[in-house]
Amino acid sequence: MPSLPSKVSIVEVGPRDGLQNEKQTIPAGVKVELVDRLTAAGFTNIEVTSFVSPKWVPQMADAAEVMAQIRRKPGVVYSVLTPNMKGFEGALAARADEIVVFGAASEAFSQKNINCSIAESIERFAPVCEAARAHGIRIRGAISCALGCPYQGEVKPEAVAYVAKLMKDIGVQHIGVADTIGVGTPRATQAAMEAALKHFDLADVSGHFHDTYGQAVGNVYACLELGVSRFDTSVAGLGGCPYAKGATGNVATEDVLYLLRGLGIETGIDLDQVVATGQWISGILNRKAFARAGNAIAAKKAA
Amino acid sequence: MPSLPSKVSIVEVGPRDGLQNEKQTIPAGVKVELVDRLTAAGFTNIEVTSFVSPKWVPQMADAAEVMAQIRRKPGVVYSVLTPNMKGFEGALAARADEIVVFGAASEAFSQKNINCSIAESIERFAPVCEAARAHGIRIRGAISCALGCPYQGEVKPEAVAYVAKLMKDIGVQHIGVADTIGVGTPRATQAAMEAALKHFDLADVSGHFHDTYGQAVGNVYACLELGVSRFDTSVAGLGGCPYAKGATGNVATEDVLYLLRGLGIETGIDLDQVVATGQWISGILNRKAFARAGNAIAAKKAA
Repeated sequence: MPSLPSKVSIVEVGPRDGLQNEKQTIPAGVKVELVDRLTAAGFTNIEVTSFVSPKWVPQMADAAEVMAQIRRKPGVVYSVLTPNMKGFEGALAARADEIVVFGAASEAFSQKNINCSIAESIERFAPVCEAARAHGIRIRGAISCALGCPYQGEVKPEAVAYVAKLMKDIGVQHIGVADTIGVGTPRATQAAMEAALKHFDLADVSGHFHDTYGQAVGNVYACLELGVSRFDTSVAGLGGCPYAKGATGNVATEDVLYLLRGLGIETGIDLDQVVATGQWISGILNRKAFARAGNAIAAKKAA
Repeated sequence: MPSLPSKVSIVEVGPRDGLQNEKQTIPAGVKVELVDRLTAAGFTNIEVTSFVSPKWVPQMADAAEVMAQIRRKPGVVYSVLTPNMKGFEGALAARADEIVVFGAASEAFSQKNINCSIAESIERFAPVCEAARAHGIRIRGAISCALGCPYQGEVKPEAVAYVAKLMKDIGVQHIGVADTIGVGTPRATQAAMEAALKHFDLADVSGHFHDTYGQAVGNVYACLELGVSRFDTSVAGLGGCPYAKGATGNVATEDVLYLLRGLGIETGIDLDQVVATGQWISGILNRKAFARAGNAIAAKKAA
């Protein structure tokens, strides 16, 4: 069997990607507490919010407020999504450590979602990346629909390589391969990852998997076998799947941390604190956490 | 990456292992319909029931009735659990195609559960195996707590090899490595599997994983990498975890079939029929299926 990385970095995306699709308005204070709890648990990279028009994503209207109130720990990277220059200005004013730009590996998705081609969608981020570089802010790119698309179905690894190249060209430093609808299985996921690796170093590529079909933990394992050592995860599995009502979305941080601990891989993150945080935020959202390891550990503690 | 098997056999354990711990009494007619639906979906091995004292497992009191009423398809192996000679006589009268005997890889579990050592527990099955052999009935052995034990915690691969050897000695033809409490992760699971492979051929070893901590699909994938091509799964993830209330138990058949389909591995089983069966039985049990792929596919169909 291939050897696995000895250390893995987790980008906790619950506060942004997780809460973004929540119908109920979540008070800024709850978001701030969530980020602070995650900082305390030992995450070194947290996706906090999105500087996007509140007309499009009302849940993120308090981006500046949340960024101003979180208690930052030195060395921790607090990331924000920036869809355009206006978003970048917000991110800059909020002293974000990293911005996230994004594009789909599916032409159908790009056309349907933002009414332009993949190439046009990435080109629009060029001034954002230039400004970020000028201010010494890290730039991460996210390739959505990398394993499949709700509109066109299949997405080939070549399409992932194509977007990776476009992002590299505009100055993206780190790339995330995102299975937005959770349809990937281990070998297809490895193929998508290898496509991104054509244009980015192993240390600069991460996996972002959704657990909609129960495959995410297996896909993380398959990427570890390739030597990939960065993954996005969401505490309590926050973030449903807008394409299949009632289905689960982001892979739960708890499940991935349990995997990594079992494999003897270091993360620097306290699983018990993450479990407690997952149970806390799920309680506030009035539902059971979508985290099997989290729920099992919590149930055992309660017994 | 290691090459994977081109075909995999699934033993569907929902009717027995899945329903066994249900508190509500399930009518024999529902169990029969469940088995018949699974037969129609294309399974070639179904664990139907258990010939065990109704004092211990009231849910299985209708074992003979269920076995008499299922519609058998030629070539399909209908298995039953037989804890002792009395159970074997029931199995024989019911024309079971395969019996299942079992033992734990944990001394603490064996002592606490059946008040004897591992070696004594296996020795007690010797006459059952002898009788099965005399009647030409297949014998499968299940090694429980192979990845961990609710009482002693860690279970070493050596303990799995030890039980496998004891089972081999009494004439067990096929062995299942069972992660009864779902604590295994991929590399530990491979180690347990390799321990069983010291005494059994690759074609005679299967994996039985619980998804309590969200690791089961990853563990199945890790075993496929070893060349293992038989797995137990449970439709709708039937069967909770008695050691962590509210936690999930058996890995869902739907999730494993989705994995195998994505890997291009043949099973001969119709995933859509399994999804429909999982939704049907979950409806009868008045709960949501513990099957991420099942629920996502069902949600997509309903949309």
